[in-house]
Amino acid sequence: MTAYRPDGLASTEDYGAFLPGPRLTRSSAAEGPLAGLTFAAKDLFDVAGHVTVCGSPDWGATHAPAARSAVVIDTLLAAGATLVGKTVTDEISLGLLGRNRHYGAPVNPRAPDRYTGGSSSGSAAAVAAGLVPFALGSDTGGSMRVPASFCGLYGIRPTHGAIPVAGLMTQAPSFDTAGFFAANAEIFARVGDVLLPEAPIGEIAEIIIAEDAFAVADSVVRDGLKAAIDRVAAMVGHSRTATIAAEGLRVWNGHHCFLQHPEFAATFAPWVDAVDPRLSYDVAKTIAHARGLPEPPKRAAEAFRPLVRERLDALLEGRRILCLPTTPMTAPPRDLSLGATGEACDRIVDLTCIAGLSGLPQVSLPLGTADGLPIGLSLIGWRGSDRTLIDFARRLASMT
Amino acid sequence: MTAYRPDGLASTEDYGAFLPGPRLTRSSAAEGPLAGLTFAAKDLFDVAGHVTVCGSPDWGATHAPAARSAVVIDTLLAAGATLVGKTVTDEISLGLLGRNRHYGAPVNPRAPDRYTGGSSSGSAAAVAAGLVPFALGSDTGGSMRVPASFCGLYGIRPTHGAIPVAGLMTQAPSFDTAGFFAANAEIFARVGDVLLPEAPIGEIAEIIIAEDAFAVADSVVRDGLKAAIDRVAAMVGHSRTATIAAEGLRVWNGHHCFLQHPEFAATFAPWVDAVDPRLSYDVAKTIAHARGLPEPPKRAAEAFRPLVRERLDALLEGRRILCLPTTPMTAPPRDLSLGATGEACDRIVDLTCIAGLSGLPQVSLPLGTADGLPIGLSLIGWRGSDRTLIDFARRLASMT
Repeated sequence: MTAYRPDGLASTEDYGAFLPGPRLTRSSAAEGPLAGLTFAAKDLFDVAGHVTVCGSPDWGATHAPAARSAVVIDTLLAAGATLVGKTVTDEISLGLLGRNRHYGAPVNPRAPDRYTGGSSSGSAAAVAAGLVPFALGSDTGGSMRVPASFCGLYGIRPTHGAIPVAGLMTQAPSFDTAGFFAANAEIFARVGDVLLPEAPIGEIAEIIIAEDAFAVADSVVRDGLKAAIDRVAAMVGHSRTATIAAEGLRVWNGHHCFLQHPEFAATFAPWVDAVDPRLSYDVAKTIAHARGLPEPPKRAAEAFRPLVRERLDALLEGRRILCLPTTPMTAPPRDLSLGATGEACDRIVDLTCIAGLSGLPQVSLPLGTADGLPIGLSLIGWRGSDRTLIDFARRLASMT
Repeated sequence: MTAYRPDGLASTEDYGAFLPGPRLTRSSAAEGPLAGLTFAAKDLFDVAGHVTVCGSPDWGATHAPAARSAVVIDTLLAAGATLVGKTVTDEISLGLLGRNRHYGAPVNPRAPDRYTGGSSSGSAAAVAAGLVPFALGSDTGGSMRVPASFCGLYGIRPTHGAIPVAGLMTQAPSFDTAGFFAANAEIFARVGDVLLPEAPIGEIAEIIIAEDAFAVADSVVRDGLKAAIDRVAAMVGHSRTATIAAEGLRVWNGHHCFLQHPEFAATFAPWVDAVDPRLSYDVAKTIAHARGLPEPPKRAAEAFRPLVRERLDALLEGRRILCLPTTPMTAPPRDLSLGATGEACDRIVDLTCIAGLSGLPQVSLPLGTADGLPIGLSLIGWRGSDRTLIDFARRLASMT
């Protein structure tokens, strides 16, 4: 075998963030709350008249142009924002590191020799590089939160169902959400005002620091987030620590897998059987294994999920929010072996499964660094607290 | 999903048999037993100075040019034959129908709307189309025999080890063989004289008609081979019927799978882990599943294989040969679903596993038709009877 770099860049122009070829652009309203702002959209969102490629040339070749644009695209255009391109995603949304064997792994502007995180990789790269002030992404298993952490961005995985997913490629419907990155907290809040449902913004009564979530993180990550935690706790005024997963987060992660994987297996099975698409081995393997999972652990996961929801709803009742590291590590190097990338993803899901299983909103704030690399601090709020979380982030930023 | 034909042709020129781009040609000796004959070689055989692509662009991109040519290529060139091109193979040799999602499925010159069989697909198409009088292929699980049957060609899977495999891509070493197709029995014998080890050619004492092998074939196949069986039996003078697999050929097939699959999983694991190559879903799934097979049936298959060898050696002792259909069906249509292609391959291995497990030589003779399509009659001989089988085919043809 000759020397080979699995994630050699397709292009260093534009940080490899955008799809190759002419940029897909759209604008509509000249005025509105987002007038003057450009944005990019992950290549999983439909734009009327164009094929949504979903990071897979064979997906693109076997799907018709979208009849209409995704609801969130139309909402942003109507608010005066201008779409300036579609961005690279992990292949058919399956990935957490920002790898894509067809279009290349976008460059992390904050650490060019490291991954951006994924699957909303190109959107994160575009915002982190300053090419656009905000960008649309999606999050099923961590795809907004991980790149927000690795690229040093504000990013949100909203309350499940709070932002419409119509026109977003389906992966695992009970987990799928549409979210957005922003370069700063002001723009984060302006976009949230447009995309999120109206809701009263209130005070946060208490910060609960998730001990078990910090315990799974690298020590440099814990150290790198200390100052930020202190700022958050000081602003709220009340804080305490708690263990979130009595069973251990690894157990929650396992249940998450046995819920998410059968869902995406069902989503992609008709396509892979009809098309026999060219996929990277890692993605094809993930689908093949997901299709063959045994029934008992699937049933166990289905029984476990409502317990997680009840427990977290009870824990956060009374306007409490959970504080945790977004990812247990900083952005991994681009030359990791496939085995090591798999292990990194497993560890990441120990943390991302909390909001995934519960459907609660999570924002990642770019308030830490570890070894000179960005690392996100996350806040998970009660169901529907999305605007409160974003407003808190804005107020926190304005105090610096 | 838009209308999609999984095996739309890459090119109809040359029946899609050859790799795209300039033809790789080689000649050496001006004189010799094969002087004046051109041949093609499956894209699994090394040619010095060129990358062996093995039906996978990412395999080609991650392997260096071959330092030397495969032994069989050098042998043929030294005998005066001229190489005129490399031919399409199923992706990394994993397939029995002649499908390739990167280079297209070669056209079956005898039935353009049907597969050629694989994985030696392009070599079979080139010979059946009259583009070359003979061609090199390989056979691990049926890759010479299936296309010989579907395209109406003479073809041999030799005694395991009889023809050197040095310079042939490894798949599953205890099954891998190098073989060749020919358009007629005279050329088949001339090439055999060059490639096969010296061995006395003797009379065949008895034909044993494999009842259980005919029982798994479609009735049109059985009917289409009747006249050929009668000719073979008449020429030998003695024939009887016998059941080959007391356990049922499906059981043999299962053991074959649990031997071949772990071998190719071991072959490809380092590459897929290092490169994360783009593979068709079906091929990637096959590797992913093969890597996860449980141990007990592997051990059972290892224990079973010597029994098959002993039994067949005993059955064929005294210069007896086995007669069976090469494939249980004629060439399947090119628009089969992925599920149906998988079922067809399962049925094919019910028959190809006999020579695979035993290591015995098998020739497929183009002596039948069913529904107007070619169908091969196979002869399996004792270990080292390769030249005897080919000579028998030549004498049989000369009597028509």
